[in-house]
Amino acid sequence: MRATVMYGAGDVRIESVPDARLIEAADALVTVTRAAICGSDLWPYKSMEPSKTGRRMGHEFIGVVEALGADVRTLNVGDLVVAPFVWSDGTCVFCRDGLHTSCLHGGRYGSDGVDGGQGEAVRVPQADGTLVVLPAGADDALMPSLLTLSDVMSTGHHAALSANVGPGKTVAVVGDGAVGLCGVIAARRLGAEQIMILGRHADRIALAKDFGATDVVSERGEEAVERVRELTDGLGAHSVLECVGYAQSTVTALSIARPGGAVGRVGVPQDEVIPEAESTFFDNVTIAGGPAPARAYIEELLPDVLEGRIEPGRVFDRVTDLDGVPDGYRAMNEREAIKVLIQF
Amino acid sequence: MRATVMYGAGDVRIESVPDARLIEAADALVTVTRAAICGSDLWPYKSMEPSKTGRRMGHEFIGVVEALGADVRTLNVGDLVVAPFVWSDGTCVFCRDGLHTSCLHGGRYGSDGVDGGQGEAVRVPQADGTLVVLPAGADDALMPSLLTLSDVMSTGHHAALSANVGPGKTVAVVGDGAVGLCGVIAARRLGAEQIMILGRHADRIALAKDFGATDVVSERGEEAVERVRELTDGLGAHSVLECVGYAQSTVTALSIARPGGAVGRVGVPQDEVIPEAESTFFDNVTIAGGPAPARAYIEELLPDVLEGRIEPGRVFDRVTDLDGVPDGYRAMNEREAIKVLIQF
Repeated sequence: MRATVMYGAGDVRIESVPDARLIEAADALVTVTRAAICGSDLWPYKSMEPSKTGRRMGHEFIGVVEALGADVRTLNVGDLVVAPFVWSDGTCVFCRDGLHTSCLHGGRYGSDGVDGGQGEAVRVPQADGTLVVLPAGADDALMPSLLTLSDVMSTGHHAALSANVGPGKTVAVVGDGAVGLCGVIAARRLGAEQIMILGRHADRIALAKDFGATDVVSERGEEAVERVRELTDGLGAHSVLECVGYAQSTVTALSIARPGGAVGRVGVPQDEVIPEAESTFFDNVTIAGGPAPARAYIEELLPDVLEGRIEPGRVFDRVTDLDGVPDGYRAMNEREAIKVLIQF
Repeated sequence: MRATVMYGAGDVRIESVPDARLIEAADALVTVTRAAICGSDLWPYKSMEPSKTGRRMGHEFIGVVEALGADVRTLNVGDLVVAPFVWSDGTCVFCRDGLHTSCLHGGRYGSDGVDGGQGEAVRVPQADGTLVVLPAGADDALMPSLLTLSDVMSTGHHAALSANVGPGKTVAVVGDGAVGLCGVIAARRLGAEQIMILGRHADRIALAKDFGATDVVSERGEEAVERVRELTDGLGAHSVLECVGYAQSTVTALSIARPGGAVGRVGVPQDEVIPEAESTFFDNVTIAGGPAPARAYIEELLPDVLEGRIEPGRVFDRVTDLDGVPDGYRAMNEREAIKVLIQF
């Protein structure tokens, strides 16, 4: 079969790889119908050391169940399924708590003999605990939004929950990438009163406004902090969604939270320390978040997607086939595209 | 009147200062009957640059209202009152949210013309929003415990709330000082199932066990992390109370939280950054806490003290008069005393 392999920074290739096949009794073999390129795929795209063996890529996909291991109980061949961006057993202490990203028997796609999502098929371990069946006749037009449940919409939702977004709250979203845009959707869905988006790309800002952003902060650094204070009677935001992960964006996020507020981190931190230890302490600012337990959120968000109340699929502004994936990485890295959908 | 003044590291003096008196219409003049030396007073005791004018000390006290400004409505001359460690107006947006430490019109004792608590009398600004009346006949034997509501018991409670302590939770308390010991009381009061105290001073550990600690971790650093893992089926603690503030204790606190757990910080951070940015992210560990809004907690904790259900006053293991305060600082700094009560 054919799949996406990264050999180093900027070096993404589509290659023939061994066919995906069942190995463990809890596996499902899934033929991929839609996949995506993630903002987090851009970290290795910017910095990966050259590798001879390469690294299989992709962790967001929808597909059809082709075959099932002997122990799988909840799925059927032919099911249309969406995969959360990590696999999980669904039964361990962390899965039972809804934190599937910390599953004691889970793992990530693209390593340890598990296929990546940016390929024709994937062996999904712990299939019962991982895959979520989509209504069989799910409209093709809904596919992009359904695909976002795999990661980016669930991640925006996690940022909002981690930042304690709720009715009447003042929210700031740091970052206008696909995750930040889904953070806007999530904040509005949870009843936020004011939603400030920090970003400066015209196309993304326009989408953010469509999704419910009430204010745009195009300044950066200390000026952005000042602007958010102006917009919040000098107090800062109740809830801040950190959707980037850089040191500077983290400083900004922590600096615009009001006393007693919370920052939900979903941008993968690119620094070993969290800044603003003292100011967050004296202001009782809570720092929360991490990888989103998408598996826990899909069932909650699915009805809103199916009934058209949220349209996170609009973050995909480019569609490609598998051969176009390397150029998709380039386009996302150069901010030519917000997010790329791969159609098989 | 006489009061405590610090002139530099290790240099604490009892001196004559101008009599406390009413200045603003919202003031109360309080004659101090009990006060305390705080662990946070030891930071300047260790590091304060020499000063010619000195710094008035103390922020934990109980006293009797001697006189009231024209605007004070809720207090009467003769009331026995406990003072939270900061003063606050009780009406601003943060006070209404229960975060009196961020009051828009509040401040700290011992600066800007406000007396410190380690002296014969204090002018308390914003008296209506600050002082809490104690039942007039409060038994003398309860005074030490009532005094802890001013700061240390409220701080332990804040650590526990910030760390999401609740029924059935596994809790680790980092630090066996007075705050850590009150953290044990708070964790037990909130229904924790397992309470591990990290510390190694025999007298403090004995008290921690009396207060409800179920396990003692006397190791430090990486060995302490290992020991907590052993005690928690390899998972870590749901709730960690960071009651020290040093870089090393913070690393330990963040490292023993289980995925999805929370660390409540109440030790004043001695470092500009929070370590473990990545591990806390990938484990979805929440970092919360800060200065305790004691004013918000006193009413909740008061009945438990009055009815003897909690005895936080046992953290005072030395009593002195005002003249003994300099030696009290020395004793606490040398860990000869856990916490010193000043009786007037």
